[in-house]
Amino acid sequence: MRPLEEPIVIEEPLEIRFAGRPVATTMRTPRDDADLALGYLFVEGWIEQLEDFASVEVGEDETGTDGAKVSTRSEPDPRCKNIADVTPRPGYRPPLDAGQRDTRSTAACGICGKRTIAEAMMLRPPPLTDPSVELPWTPSVLARLPDLLRERQELFHLTGALHAAGLFSSTGELFSLREDIGRHNAVDKVIGDAFRRGCLPLSAYALQVSGRVSFEIVQKAHRAGIPLISAVSGVSSLAVEFAERAGITLIGFVRDGRSTVYTHPQRLSLRGSSSARSVATRDRS
Amino acid sequence: MRPLEEPIVIEEPLEIRFAGRPVATTMRTPRDDADLALGYLFVEGWIEQLEDFASVEVGEDETGTDGAKVSTRSEPDPRCKNIADVTPRPGYRPPLDAGQRDTRSTAACGICGKRTIAEAMMLRPPPLTDPSVELPWTPSVLARLPDLLRERQELFHLTGALHAAGLFSSTGELFSLREDIGRHNAVDKVIGDAFRRGCLPLSAYALQVSGRVSFEIVQKAHRAGIPLISAVSGVSSLAVEFAERAGITLIGFVRDGRSTVYTHPQRLSLRGSSSARSVATRDRS
Repeated sequence: MRPLEEPIVIEEPLEIRFAGRPVATTMRTPRDDADLALGYLFVEGWIEQLEDFASVEVGEDETGTDGAKVSTRSEPDPRCKNIADVTPRPGYRPPLDAGQRDTRSTAACGICGKRTIAEAMMLRPPPLTDPSVELPWTPSVLARLPDLLRERQELFHLTGALHAAGLFSSTGELFSLREDIGRHNAVDKVIGDAFRRGCLPLSAYALQVSGRVSFEIVQKAHRAGIPLISAVSGVSSLAVEFAERAGITLIGFVRDGRSTVYTHPQRLSLRGSSSARSVATRDRS
Repeated sequence: MRPLEEPIVIEEPLEIRFAGRPVATTMRTPRDDADLALGYLFVEGWIEQLEDFASVEVGEDETGTDGAKVSTRSEPDPRCKNIADVTPRPGYRPPLDAGQRDTRSTAACGICGKRTIAEAMMLRPPPLTDPSVELPWTPSVLARLPDLLRERQELFHLTGALHAAGLFSSTGELFSLREDIGRHNAVDKVIGDAFRRGCLPLSAYALQVSGRVSFEIVQKAHRAGIPLISAVSGVSSLAVEFAERAGITLIGFVRDGRSTVYTHPQRLSLRGSSSARSVATRDRS
């Protein structure tokens, strides 16, 4: 046995406030807190567009965000670094259904705040886009996304224990990448980044995630207008059901030149590619 | 592209009720629902010992539990298979602080229901046991636990996307193994299994998990009296802090004959073993 210095991924609670009122506490890796707060509040329906918010105030340690509306507080309260407060524009009122999924969030799920099964399901979204319209991602670009994500992960290399979410164009260009101990937080962060940059909806971007895809990930992507989700690992039955109804193409197990298309394979052009034959789809008949 | 039949891990909401009242909804893999409900309610403080509950009623599809107090309902309501109702013994009243972490749970986190950071932390548990007392697990047994867990995972082989938690004796004998799409649910399930069999506290068992260890996993183990947690992947800073204070030995990255002991290495006898030199500990001085 020998002592060593080993980096450990930081997990700390973040209290997300809207207009000074706590609406959620999530266990997260402290980085890009402004993006996390904005992404969470957007996904939960508290804010809908860039104009809805005036500023977001985060702790002193916050780095990595460069938005004009992001400021750091300087109070001596040591808890301040674990609070992100989003101030809406004067006179703004959130939609009536804001935070209807209650007011809490978590590092790794997002389904929090459901008391009944009916609330938890919300399984009948309108199709996002016409599922007959072809998406521009080719199999070769899709096959590269997991590596592109991992190559750009800064913190994973240090700790080996972080999830990542990335938004990629159809040519494989990275638009945003965020890391977090929680899968759902990483997705909220990239959506928050896009929100802050005024780039929603994300209809031109694919969401690549480092882990699995559960119901909540698809729900967040749907809210942000993302038409394609790709995962290194598996997907859940409810994720498939939701993606099917939402018109989202969902791909899992993207590894070793293979992948599985779970929903809407007709949106992908899988012809004329050397890797096309290795792409499998579920028989949904 | 070719169609194929591929198993997908099932994700469905489970409503956990106590005395008929919904206290949590979690996204889970439908199996061992009685264990999940009992484990969750025990960890959250609703019930404390076997005598506190009279029966648990779960959906028709439920299999895998054999407890005398477990029954299945037969109503035609299709939602019934996603409800687990735990009935306490007549006259039983839960402790005043039951469900103080609010009343919700999730597939992958468990920190739900925190509104303030102070609530979320709860970081000063009394030490579980005397941290100077040596634990009986040898390095060679510890190194085998991840393989023992994986070998016994029934569903993982089918879907490749399930977490598992296992309780192992100091000789590597399996006491309980449960699988779920959510890391936290798998831990609740093994604790619930032990609860139903009247085997709490679990001071003679190590908890081996398939994934990472965050704050909440340590909190659950602490509640169940588990003195040692071992993870295939990494651990979070808050998990380390909590385990340190609780007197729990926390081991991560148990792979390829190596591992990292994050807390209380003095509880393990690492001398005289061929693999001892490959066990590393953080320098906490």
